Amino acid sequence: MTLPAPKHFRCEIRDGIARISHDRPERKNPFTFDSYAEMRDWFRALVYADDVHAVVILPNGGNFSSGGDVHDIIGPLTKMSMKELLAFTRMTGDLVKAMIHCGKPIIAAVDGVCAGAGAIMAMASDIRIAGPEAKVAFLFNRVGLAGCDMGACAMLPRIIGQGRAAELLYTGRTLRTEEGERWGFFNSVSTAEALEADAIALAARISDGPTFANSMTKTMLAQEWNMSLDQAIEAEAQAQAICMQGNDFRRAYDAFVAKEKPVFEGD
Amino acid sequence: MTLPAPKHFRCEIRDGIARISHDRPERKNPFTFDSYAEMRDWFRALVYADDVHAVVILPNGGNFSSGGDVHDIIGPLTKMSMKELLAFTRMTGDLVKAMIHCGKPIIAAVDGVCAGAGAIMAMASDIRIAGPEAKVAFLFNRVGLAGCDMGACAMLPRIIGQGRAAELLYTGRTLRTEEGERWGFFNSVSTAEALEADAIALAARISDGPTFANSMTKTMLAQEWNMSLDQAIEAEAQAQAICMQGNDFRRAYDAFVAKEKPVFEGD
Amino acid sequence: MTLPAPKHFRCEIRDGIARISHDRPERKNPFTFDSYAEMRDWFRALVYADDVHAVVILPNGGNFSSGGDVHDIIGPLTKMSMKELLAFTRMTGDLVKAMIHCGKPIIAAVDGVCAGAGAIMAMASDIRIAGPEAKVAFLFNRVGLAGCDMGACAMLPRIIGQGRAAELLYTGRTLRTEEGERWGFFNSVSTAEALEADAIALAARISDGPTFANSMTKTMLAQEWNMSLDQAIEAEAQAQAICMQGNDFRRAYDAFVAKEKPVFEGD
Repeated sequence: MTLPAPKHFRCEIRDGIARISHDRPERKNPFTFDSYAEMRDWFRALVYADDVHAVVILPNGGNFSSGGDVHDIIGPLTKMSMKELLAFTRMTGDLVKAMIHCGKPIIAAVDGVCAGAGAIMAMASDIRIAGPEAKVAFLFNRVGLAGCDMGACAMLPRIIGQGRAAELLYTGRTLRTEEGERWGFFNSVSTAEALEADAIALAARISDGPTFANSMTKTMLAQEWNMSLDQAIEAEAQAQAICMQGNDFRRAYDAFVAKEKPVFEGD
Repeated sequence: MTLPAPKHFRCEIRDGIARISHDRPERKNPFTFDSYAEMRDWFRALVYADDVHAVVILPNGGNFSSGGDVHDIIGPLTKMSMKELLAFTRMTGDLVKAMIHCGKPIIAAVDGVCAGAGAIMAMASDIRIAGPEAKVAFLFNRVGLAGCDMGACAMLPRIIGQGRAAELLYTGRTLRTEEGERWGFFNSVSTAEALEADAIALAARISDGPTFANSMTKTMLAQEWNMSLDQAIEAEAQAQAICMQGNDFRRAYDAFVAKEKPVFEGD
Repeated sequence: MTLPAPKHFRCEIRDGIARISHDRPERKNPFTFDSYAEMRDWFRALVYADDVHAVVILPNGGNFSSGGDVHDIIGPLTKMSMKELLAFTRMTGDLVKAMIHCGKPIIAAVDGVCAGAGAIMAMASDIRIAGPEAKVAFLFNRVGLAGCDMGACAMLPRIIGQGRAAELLYTGRTLRTEEGERWGFFNSVSTAEALEADAIALAARISDGPTFANSMTKTMLAQEWNMSLDQAIEAEAQAQAICMQGNDFRRAYDAFVAKEKPVFEGD
């Protein structure tokens, strides 16, 4: 199954790694209704794309994304009925759900503006690498909205802790590179020049691993979110037993015995 | 609806911000049975106080609170029946529930002693700012009790992580300003002179925002505590759609188009 | 009730503190099928051992544990049926469950290699102290498996945050002492010489406290894992009321009135 070629965002697939980015750098890469919907559909299709093993979300023109466009999105929203509004917030939420359930690790390479829905896309990625000028802002309350957007009140506290998340969501203030790394929002920091290559190198390292097992890791990181400890441990006993019947496990053992580096094939 | 004027703690309401503090500085501000019950009732009434948009809990005489008074509270507790004890622990728990459900962001400005139930009040606030001499101690085990008091085993791990929370709860040791900031217990650190003003400035920044939406943020930070990710995303789709029909969202958009600063009115 | 003397790992009980360690230092202390099962049974029996108040897991020969032995465990696993595999993953999960439900605080003193199931045992402990050369690796994906092993996808995010946990689980990379302390995986760092003594001193401090109440703290830290906030607060009201009828609470009060140091007896 081949992924549809998107019209409203950039996408390049090479060596099993999809590189995507927003596509209006002259306006700092805002979302539009079309790009929201197309990204949702793309991540949904990604589940079945056996030739893609990891996704990297890249900045474009030095910025990650400025979030929902004021003219294209916010203006129309102020005139909508509740039914229309709920259809919109469910669509944006569906993008996050599609990212969580796509089965492939997602690495966000964040530099420049990363605001609103852009910050949410970074948050909904599995791993985040910062460039030196990252400016992350959950700025919903600055446009008169609540911090609870696309799962932020559930996900941000798990990444940086409840107190720090509350501050960002109540104030909409900017989290910059250094503080973001200290708080665990960013896994690491790269130079502007190295950011893209570092993110792709990490994606390559992960996609050179056992990709079926990686997909199970991703599933369980979401699946165990609100299980009890005992339930989580039983769920992992089952999930890992499945992986132990996989061929990659045997390949790793055979390579170890032969004192070679294992070559995983993802089954 | 006006809030009742408390007798057992200090409370001043100005510019939509309630400043409260314990009121026995000569004894480092211990709780009494009366102050527990009155604070619980005050936070419950706060839900309906439309003219209060944020709460700041301040130190008094250089200390935040020493927790349950040994003579006024611990002595009597050692002589109570199980029925009476449970009535007491439910009352203290009800104070935390009332803080969580009061609908207004709470900022704790912590300096000096912040122990036992005082540490719990800081923990149950949304945001914590430290003065230079903050000494936070969940010292329950030092008086022969368990660390599970007023929600500590649920809330502290979400703020500073499970391992660090376990250490504080098993030992009752003191967490000081610098370490508390590193761990995410404190959002920031102020000088002793600036602490009160900094906390009130942050409260003012938040209460100048969209207060109805802020209240929704607070609701959802608690509401999503143990939802699945998919449930949380749907819950936020509904909550944010409600806020998108609010007037503050339209005010922000109109201000943006007019290149002005939005003035929010909380509806 | 006396604990059985283990054959497949080292165990010494003195002054109410059990010191355990793996027992094949020449191979960096790998697990075997036997040591897994015996540790599971030992932690299950620990529930009833009233004379043990804390557990310290120590390195042996400079290493904590290298995890499941490649020859003794991984080889046989590659040849097993699904029924046999699930029996194995449930046994390893049962070790973690037994640690969580053993009723005694567990302190892991980690230095040298701490990999795979070794890293899991450190993670499932309540508190972790690092020596200078700790090398923690959740290296499951490097042997072709998923990161969801023995509860890792549930527990690691609560200790170090979701983003950092995801990176460690997807890459299997090594987390060293300094970074581990910064991230909250380690509570503190000791020199190689002081590590064992520091861990035992902390265990002694905890076991000199109210041990029945400590056990309740441990129970509730697990029990409240996926409760709502309101449920957690009610659960703690009940748990703490039980502790308030304990004798250690009265002992602490009497000692305070007499201006003495309390001597707790664990009832």
